[in-house]
Amino acid sequence: MNLTQPIHRAAVMTPNALATVCGERSHTWRQIHDRVSRLGGALRSLGVDRGDRVAILSLNSDRYLEYYFACWWIGAVVVPMNIRWSPSENAYSLRDSGAEVLFVDQTFAPAIPAIKAEAELIRELIYLGDDDKPEGMRAYEEFLSSGDPVEDVRAGGEEMGGIYYTGGTTGFPKGVMLAHQALWLNGLIMAKHVDTQPGCRYLHAAPMFHLADGAGSMAVTAMGGTHYFVAAFTPDGAIRATSENEISHALLVPTMIDMVLAHPDFTPEKFKSLNWLLYGASPMPEGLMRQAIEKLSGVNFVQGYGQTELAPIVTVMPPEYHVLEGPNAGKLRSAGIPAVGLEVRIVDEDGNPCKTGEVGEIVARGATAMLGYWNRPEETAATLKDGWVHTGDGAYMDEDGFIFIVDRMKDMIVTGGENVFSAEVESAISTHPGVAGVAVVGIPSDKWGEAVHAIVIPREGHSPSAEKIIDHCREQIANYKLPRSVDFRSDPFPLSGAGKVLKRDLRARYWEGRGRSVN
Amino acid sequence: MNLTQPIHRAAVMTPNALATVCGERSHTWRQIHDRVSRLGGALRSLGVDRGDRVAILSLNSDRYLEYYFACWWIGAVVVPMNIRWSPSENAYSLRDSGAEVLFVDQTFAPAIPAIKAEAELIRELIYLGDDDKPEGMRAYEEFLSSGDPVEDVRAGGEEMGGIYYTGGTTGFPKGVMLAHQALWLNGLIMAKHVDTQPGCRYLHAAPMFHLADGAGSMAVTAMGGTHYFVAAFTPDGAIRATSENEISHALLVPTMIDMVLAHPDFTPEKFKSLNWLLYGASPMPEGLMRQAIEKLSGVNFVQGYGQTELAPIVTVMPPEYHVLEGPNAGKLRSAGIPAVGLEVRIVDEDGNPCKTGEVGEIVARGATAMLGYWNRPEETAATLKDGWVHTGDGAYMDEDGFIFIVDRMKDMIVTGGENVFSAEVESAISTHPGVAGVAVVGIPSDKWGEAVHAIVIPREGHSPSAEKIIDHCREQIANYKLPRSVDFRSDPFPLSGAGKVLKRDLRARYWEGRGRSVN
Repeated sequence: MNLTQPIHRAAVMTPNALATVCGERSHTWRQIHDRVSRLGGALRSLGVDRGDRVAILSLNSDRYLEYYFACWWIGAVVVPMNIRWSPSENAYSLRDSGAEVLFVDQTFAPAIPAIKAEAELIRELIYLGDDDKPEGMRAYEEFLSSGDPVEDVRAGGEEMGGIYYTGGTTGFPKGVMLAHQALWLNGLIMAKHVDTQPGCRYLHAAPMFHLADGAGSMAVTAMGGTHYFVAAFTPDGAIRATSENEISHALLVPTMIDMVLAHPDFTPEKFKSLNWLLYGASPMPEGLMRQAIEKLSGVNFVQGYGQTELAPIVTVMPPEYHVLEGPNAGKLRSAGIPAVGLEVRIVDEDGNPCKTGEVGEIVARGATAMLGYWNRPEETAATLKDGWVHTGDGAYMDEDGFIFIVDRMKDMIVTGGENVFSAEVESAISTHPGVAGVAVVGIPSDKWGEAVHAIVIPREGHSPSAEKIIDHCREQIANYKLPRSVDFRSDPFPLSGAGKVLKRDLRARYWEGRGRSVN
Repeated sequence: MNLTQPIHRAAVMTPNALATVCGERSHTWRQIHDRVSRLGGALRSLGVDRGDRVAILSLNSDRYLEYYFACWWIGAVVVPMNIRWSPSENAYSLRDSGAEVLFVDQTFAPAIPAIKAEAELIRELIYLGDDDKPEGMRAYEEFLSSGDPVEDVRAGGEEMGGIYYTGGTTGFPKGVMLAHQALWLNGLIMAKHVDTQPGCRYLHAAPMFHLADGAGSMAVTAMGGTHYFVAAFTPDGAIRATSENEISHALLVPTMIDMVLAHPDFTPEKFKSLNWLLYGASPMPEGLMRQAIEKLSGVNFVQGYGQTELAPIVTVMPPEYHVLEGPNAGKLRSAGIPAVGLEVRIVDEDGNPCKTGEVGEIVARGATAMLGYWNRPEETAATLKDGWVHTGDGAYMDEDGFIFIVDRMKDMIVTGGENVFSAEVESAISTHPGVAGVAVVGIPSDKWGEAVHAIVIPREGHSPSAEKIIDHCREQIANYKLPRSVDFRSDPFPLSGAGKVLKRDLRARYWEGRGRSVN
């Protein structure tokens, strides 16, 4: 089960079919097979060996896909960097992974000096842009052409295929190690649940560093479909790309769907080719769902709930439950049923299965489970127990086997599809001299699903403004982690018996009257 | 990737949903989970350890399915015996596998003394019938209830899950060793291509010992569907079972489809629930296809071409190519495109890829490939080279990646879904005193796809009749391998440069005017 396998399959089966279309550039499967083997050869000539980590920091493009497959071709390990992180955060994950080679595009090239200053191991930079390459970098096409095609080493099975960094409860990103088998199988799981087919047309609109889109990359390649790209999501860009390329399959988060439907360029006609729409990160709010069903009739909606530690798909909400009436109604707030190939349970604090309707932690096992956290045996042991990945998400299962997420045990906020750990934001705010106490929670947001919200107890004699608090965080954490709003209080926070802040109590007033109470 | 995984998944997700319905008997997934863990415990109490082989000789039933999963639960290896083989052939495979425990039903219990006489290792017999158990056997339900539920050992990955006997070119059956991973993944591949879903209703109409139905067993269990059974295929039985149980998914060979459509009980109304029909072993003759499309409108037809050595699916013909007109027409005689997860190539005698349209041997690789032949390193080495399974089938690939089988290099006949090796039949006929020379080929048959046909050169002074020749074979080989017709000639057989009989020349006159020339 090696990740390059679909490239070989497609190159034999449909060598002349389109593999990638990116702006003016397009390649057939035969060309991709050749280019990947050359790019692999070029990487090897830089001294990249089997098991070595190779990183990328880039918006979406066909070259991102080539990077993935070229690394796997020579048995190297991909390290896709979060495009929303600060240079410091990315430098941390580069140092942690030990990557020495980094692919970077024109958008992120200006950040390289700041990153390199903190990530001294980086010795080779491949520039993905088409304009003049910055000094000290290699131009992508030239670099690729310089490589002699090499044989696929056929890395596979339990061999590590990628390290995917995810926010940590301690404020430091953790590297999730995923095997070839896990990534490959997850692609097949998505191919099953989102019904990719030979000749399907998939739009990479969500960021490619993210495993949700990574699953799409594999699901589409496995079936021999065609990849289309928008560099970064904008509603008008996604509308145009879908319409012009007759996209059949896409992955968006609800926030993006909302923006698309609300955009003046949107017409149902432009989405008539769209057949399957996977949305992730959060359930579809009922108002949005109602709109989507009406405006995107003929589209099969599938929700995927996932976690990087599970490569990432854990549960899926099938299309037939995306209805407001009839026998299948009433599941819209659910994250769905376990994806094929996964066992999912709700367990109590002692690890015993909960009864139907009882809230506990979601745990999952299957061949898509992570190998562990890179260089973090203790955190691995805390998350991966007897083969079960502990997700940290609280949920119950109804009598039909549908899972309803009710709380994120890891104290995490999901905003616009990104995970933000409260602890990290609290840590940033707490360094402000005017702050005596702080608690960060997710509050409902029509645009982002949840928004990061800080509740601050000012230090005696200080009265910091919300703006000052937010400004104070700006240099420490990525933009999407910044609090969107700040409330002040003088009373101490409500505490649990163990002395922990009772966030559920703090969140209550913001969520009142809302159907869902994630975080 | 362990084969018992879907049982755990379904028992948590939909414990009260129906897992199996067999005549008057039905069980939910919670019950199946319990029964499998008990049957596993009972087997272990007989001394069955991880890696031990446990055989079965039985028509279809829910107990066949329980046997599969109970063996895997304790890490034992299943050995499903061919119900069409003679006692001698089955005794051979029992001896070869080293199985000591055998499950047998009421149909085959009478053959046990003859089998045991040649398979002395067998020390325990479990009787699957509901009537009084024969002496020296254990009654199934009593045996199962005697077991304490045991923990699943979670055998999986590359660990052997089954030995499946297949006819050999030398006349001796070979045991194909398949890993958990191969059988599991093949089930997922089938789940993808035949779109099994939670709640789907699958009919076991083809024999369960066969891997084609084995793929169905996994594909349906993986998704949490319900299994229905007919003990052995009859057209009226299949019609009744489909209609009464509102079957949505089934697997039949074209011969069976023909018998169903021709039966007086058939009405389209009785098949209105049928959504997906996988047919295997041979393409659908055009006349039959035309009938099937007309009479089974609304059914998605999928052809699967497979081989035991590949667990078994190799290629699939998707529904949209089962048409007689339009842009997708013209592929009906094809075996389809490589199944997802498989690389398939057509290679020449030196192993180099053939050009489009050029005939060579089909080779395939993927995680579903066999581990090898049990105790036959030389034959393994001849078939499994650099990870590629050499199928022995001759074919070409067209410009759209569709594979057209034109010859079976292993000199094999596919009749009614079963493989018959010419060498074995020739060997039986050649022992007749009146036979100087013999060649066995497949000739077209509307009923069986191909029929076994013998061409005999009588010994001087002898003139054996066709009936005598066939009678002579009866004790040596299984009924389905017997020649259906015999021609006589006095001229020597045409020979190749290497001195081999040119079977293609012999077959030519029988296949004249037929579109397809398999064998």
